[in-house]
Amino acid sequence: MKLYTKYLWFDTKKRQEFINITAQVESAVIESGVKEGLCLVNAMHITASVFINDDESGLHKDFDVWLEKLAPCGKEKYSHNLSGEDNADAHLKRTVMGREVVIAITKGKLDFGPWEQVFYGEFDGKRKKRALIKIIGQ
Amino acid sequence: MKLYTKYLWFDTKKRQEFINITAQVESAVIESGVKEGLCLVNAMHITASVFINDDESGLHKDFDVWLEKLAPCGKEKYSHNLSGEDNADAHLKRTVMGREVVIAITKGKLDFGPWEQVFYGEFDGKRKKRALIKIIGQ
Amino acid sequence: MKLYTKYLWFDTKKRQEFINITAQVESAVIESGVKEGLCLVNAMHITASVFINDDESGLHKDFDVWLEKLAPCGKEKYSHNLSGEDNADAHLKRTVMGREVVIAITKGKLDFGPWEQVFYGEFDGKRKKRALIKIIGQ
Repeated sequence: MKLYTKYLWFDTKKRQEFINITAQVESAVIESGVKEGLCLVNAMHITASVFINDDESGLHKDFDVWLEKLAPCGKEKYSHNLSGEDNADAHLKRTVMGREVVIAITKGKLDFGPWEQVFYGEFDGKRKKRALIKIIGQ
Repeated sequence: MKLYTKYLWFDTKKRQEFINITAQVESAVIESGVKEGLCLVNAMHITASVFINDDESGLHKDFDVWLEKLAPCGKEKYSHNLSGEDNADAHLKRTVMGREVVIAITKGKLDFGPWEQVFYGEFDGKRKKRALIKIIGQ
Repeated sequence: MKLYTKYLWFDTKKRQEFINITAQVESAVIESGVKEGLCLVNAMHITASVFINDDESGLHKDFDVWLEKLAPCGKEKYSHNLSGEDNADAHLKRTVMGREVVIAITKGKLDFGPWEQVFYGEFDGKRKKRALIKIIGQ
């Protein structure tokens, strides 16, 4: 049984950003030596997300517009922000997009369909944050 | 340590459909020989979902109405559709419903509560698509 | 390879409640003896959720208000409720919040970022319900 752990660091220039991390996850799988198993990738911060979708810039704009509609930003809109925070909307946006993905590893590779790509979704950036890769298998 | 991989194929008649795949997942657990472990089931396409909920037709209608309200279809509504696609809403609907589930296997069975059933959720169907089952355990 | 299973019971006083179960999950990790692995925590009922976010009461109020906006309660609003149920909204709320989390275990501990806490989210309470912890690793 093999286990492997890796941390990815992010420090985005914008408050909200989607970063394709598929290549980093693929590298971690190779480094782990695991041929068959599971690969967990999760945000380690509660205003960020790891999700799987298409690497298409129009769709990413759609995500921005859609998330703003579902959970608009605004300091005065949320009870959480009474505690001095201004990021309640980021907690809600990350909830929609999800904290984590679990990916099958088959024959030494991420077992992906034709368009699956892994993204780190930042909703309260401009500071150092981490995602975690944990691989288990043989 | 045992590992087992299986692919399920779908080709729905309607654009949007929910298909109960619990029996197929149960069969895969038996085929794997795993008595204690984890079972990942995920959509391999980014306009489809695997989720766990109730097998009740009224609720499935409610999901349809609700997802249409949260992420309405419409070619002109989304930037993604400028690229020639017409399925941006399907990407958003799948995001709400989730890409994957991870299910515990205990004493050789899916360790489910009283009403848990696994569904493949299609949001841009009428073509061949796959879901993946990956089982790890002993 | 070590595997460990534990069930947590809940019987909330209110219909909707968020309960911090981080300490119980940490105890299960110690009881499992697993130093490196994965920990699945999932609701076993389809009107409840397990999710990771901040333990801040203002944010929890924001979740309440937000979920009510996305999926308002109301017996007459949903087809599911024609079957005699009154909890369709709870199925939708749980869908937004998610059924499960998968957490990495590193050096014998939940490998968490600075503010990550695990919650049981109840959306149709006042009766006995369960969550499941399944740990796999070495």
